Amino acid sequence: MSASRRYAPELVTDLYELTMAASYLREGMIREATFSLFIRDYPPDRAYFVCAGIEDLVETVTDLNFSHSSLEYLSSLEKFPREFLDYLRRFRFSGTIRAMPEGRIFFAQEPILEVTAPLIEGQILESLILNTIQLETLIAGKAARCVHAARGRGLIDFSLRRTQGIQAGLKAARGSYIAGFLGTSNLMAGEWYKIPVFGTMAHSYVTSFPSEMDAFVAYARAFPDNTVLLIDTYDTLSGARKAVQVAKRMRDEGKQLVGVRLDSGDLAELSKQVRAILVGEGFPDVMIFASGNLDEYKVEELVRAGAEIDIFAVGTRMGVSADSPYLDIAYKLVEYDGRPVLKLSAGKKTWVGRKQVYRSRDGEGKMKEDRLALAGEKVPGAEPLLETVVEGGRLVHPLETPATIRERFRQEWEGLPPIYRELRPRHRYPVSIGAELGALQEKTIREKSLQEID
Amino acid sequence: MSASRRYAPELVTDLYELTMAASYLREGMIREATFSLFIRDYPPDRAYFVCAGIEDLVETVTDLNFSHSSLEYLSSLEKFPREFLDYLRRFRFSGTIRAMPEGRIFFAQEPILEVTAPLIEGQILESLILNTIQLETLIAGKAARCVHAARGRGLIDFSLRRTQGIQAGLKAARGSYIAGFLGTSNLMAGEWYKIPVFGTMAHSYVTSFPSEMDAFVAYARAFPDNTVLLIDTYDTLSGARKAVQVAKRMRDEGKQLVGVRLDSGDLAELSKQVRAILVGEGFPDVMIFASGNLDEYKVEELVRAGAEIDIFAVGTRMGVSADSPYLDIAYKLVEYDGRPVLKLSAGKKTWVGRKQVYRSRDGEGKMKEDRLALAGEKVPGAEPLLETVVEGGRLVHPLETPATIRERFRQEWEGLPPIYRELRPRHRYPVSIGAELGALQEKTIREKSLQEID
Repeated sequence: MSASRRYAPELVTDLYELTMAASYLREGMIREATFSLFIRDYPPDRAYFVCAGIEDLVETVTDLNFSHSSLEYLSSLEKFPREFLDYLRRFRFSGTIRAMPEGRIFFAQEPILEVTAPLIEGQILESLILNTIQLETLIAGKAARCVHAARGRGLIDFSLRRTQGIQAGLKAARGSYIAGFLGTSNLMAGEWYKIPVFGTMAHSYVTSFPSEMDAFVAYARAFPDNTVLLIDTYDTLSGARKAVQVAKRMRDEGKQLVGVRLDSGDLAELSKQVRAILVGEGFPDVMIFASGNLDEYKVEELVRAGAEIDIFAVGTRMGVSADSPYLDIAYKLVEYDGRPVLKLSAGKKTWVGRKQVYRSRDGEGKMKEDRLALAGEKVPGAEPLLETVVEGGRLVHPLETPATIRERFRQEWEGLPPIYRELRPRHRYPVSIGAELGALQEKTIREKSLQEID
Repeated sequence: MSASRRYAPELVTDLYELTMAASYLREGMIREATFSLFIRDYPPDRAYFVCAGIEDLVETVTDLNFSHSSLEYLSSLEKFPREFLDYLRRFRFSGTIRAMPEGRIFFAQEPILEVTAPLIEGQILESLILNTIQLETLIAGKAARCVHAARGRGLIDFSLRRTQGIQAGLKAARGSYIAGFLGTSNLMAGEWYKIPVFGTMAHSYVTSFPSEMDAFVAYARAFPDNTVLLIDTYDTLSGARKAVQVAKRMRDEGKQLVGVRLDSGDLAELSKQVRAILVGEGFPDVMIFASGNLDEYKVEELVRAGAEIDIFAVGTRMGVSADSPYLDIAYKLVEYDGRPVLKLSAGKKTWVGRKQVYRSRDGEGKMKEDRLALAGEKVPGAEPLLETVVEGGRLVHPLETPATIRERFRQEWEGLPPIYRELRPRHRYPVSIGAELGALQEKTIREKSLQEID
């Protein structure tokens, strides 16, 4: 992320996490705590979330330690006592992380992840956990909407150039692949995650040649097995006619033009006209790619308008989740030293205690209801969603491949009732509260209100 | 960004950049090209941009090379001929980069940066340049709006937990500091950029203690010189009264409570009530911090309502530029081998040729008009904004500190006429077109239309 600076995940934190931790150490508050990560409410037009980002998180957490140079920096702030810096020097995460497997569909208020560890350890991880899980969960959810809108047509991630940073570009590629995209244009994501990579050509390629035809011919010469021509640089229909000429030359050499790409103008109308030209000239199999400010709403509109588009290249608006660029995600202390805790702040409800999410399905395997309950509560016939991924500071299972997670999401999607899949859903999935959790919550609120509010 | 994977800036690119480059090499198209980076139009409610991100970019570009493992990955794709992989193995950027200094204010259609280099080199950098400059320019602009809205009150960046990735968190801290924030909660940004760091405490801190009062006392014990108490965990006014008790105890020990923080409820009303409690008890100097879904609109509203807030802690909505999370930024080939080039695609105008931006000011130093012109055009009395930062692949000057850039932005801001500073501006800053640029543009459009459109 920088040529000259060292990435230090142990400093991916807000100052207050460490000042609080220093105070905990001073006060001897080193007992076990549980923190819950959850999304408070749905952004506009959302009725479900897609869990993603767990791998990156648990890899980082199980490897976390404070380097010499990070400790020097912290010492230079002149805020921390020597004993605390010594504590950090020895720091390794020793706790338990329970999380939903990536690719799971989940709902507002449900914990996606719970950390149970000595209080200081759980506190120090707060900012890192929030940042890591939010981004990929946000993108996977946005991409799932695009996949739904495309109704079986293919999608490719083209977002790298305008994501909020390079790391965000990687997560956009991974998140959208999990959600069902065919692959990405992003080479680093291709290398890291073994995601298929795709590409066509840019306008600069076309304009660098003396003529559009020269550019098309040169590209076909270089990549005869994978030629997709961008045809809107000067005029889309003129471009389509030139593409047909190239396709004919290729056919003479035993090759096939793979596709053409449209990137501007009225994509529905132009795609139909381009298809007519291609079919009329005997090339019904040449694919039509489309790009340009696409998102799930635009894709749905194009599909409804009968656009002749085989592959949607979706970029910026998916890669930054433009209509809703963040989630109201929170990481809250819910139990310390066996005592349930919560805050009463206006409009920011949190559920006390170490929890589990239980999912019930109907006879056809469709999700029927989730129950948010204490970890010890029993919900007969329901499936618990949180699984232990880190125990004693170590990974419990090897990490999964994005392809495995993608397949899990595909199955989850099959189980999601269609009313929640819509781009503008009008229903909320039912999440009920376990009897024991409800009772403990009420008792804690009552006691805290009496104790703290005058 | 990942515990187990190596960050490879040379792969921060879209596949097509390399397939196009491979074709250029095959065709012998290795002459000099110029690419322009510019923002097509303003997002809603914007009338200016703040240049940022140049440092990160030029550091990466001047250091760029293809590692053995990256070449192995590219080879594994079976798309590239051996000669091209050999070219990449020897790749070093050898060209020139002219850019606006960071902290400059600029406008739509103006090049922020131009790359002049052998065609392949300029092409390969496209995705990296777009991604790097867009994010920090986006955030610096958003943060400048918050600073304007705060009318002299202080601001701190609290965005790390919900930025779109960890890298985005770093850029949010740097960009907002350049725009005039006091500092950030983000420790890694503090270390990297030497930005002041700030922090208070979280609700988890308060809830982990048996009582709110215990938490406050413990914090004051650990950080007697820098105590800011979060008072809304259970009830803001009850919290304020407890804070007063702590302030009294601290005073007895010769210390001073620095501040209290509000994070929920009606911040304007609560801040006034809290101020009344503090003043009434003899603590007029205790600062009031406020946080919670703040952005420039909310800050302006609070200032107008006479909120008794000294420091705004601004997080998510600034850190992702929530109302407008991307810029319509483009990187376009404008000249190849001395020949001006452009595309004619609908709604996507680009200006041909290697350019300069000239700025004229009125007698009081206020910006009056910019002129977009060919690099060789003369505009008497106007200041050219693009400066050479990389020549022959090397940095021309040492990089600047964020503090220097922050001071430049402060001066720029002084020169920006107030009508463009507004949160909902109704005017557009005038950008005229140089006579030679205008003539070359028309000639190129005419010739290309005749040649390419049938």
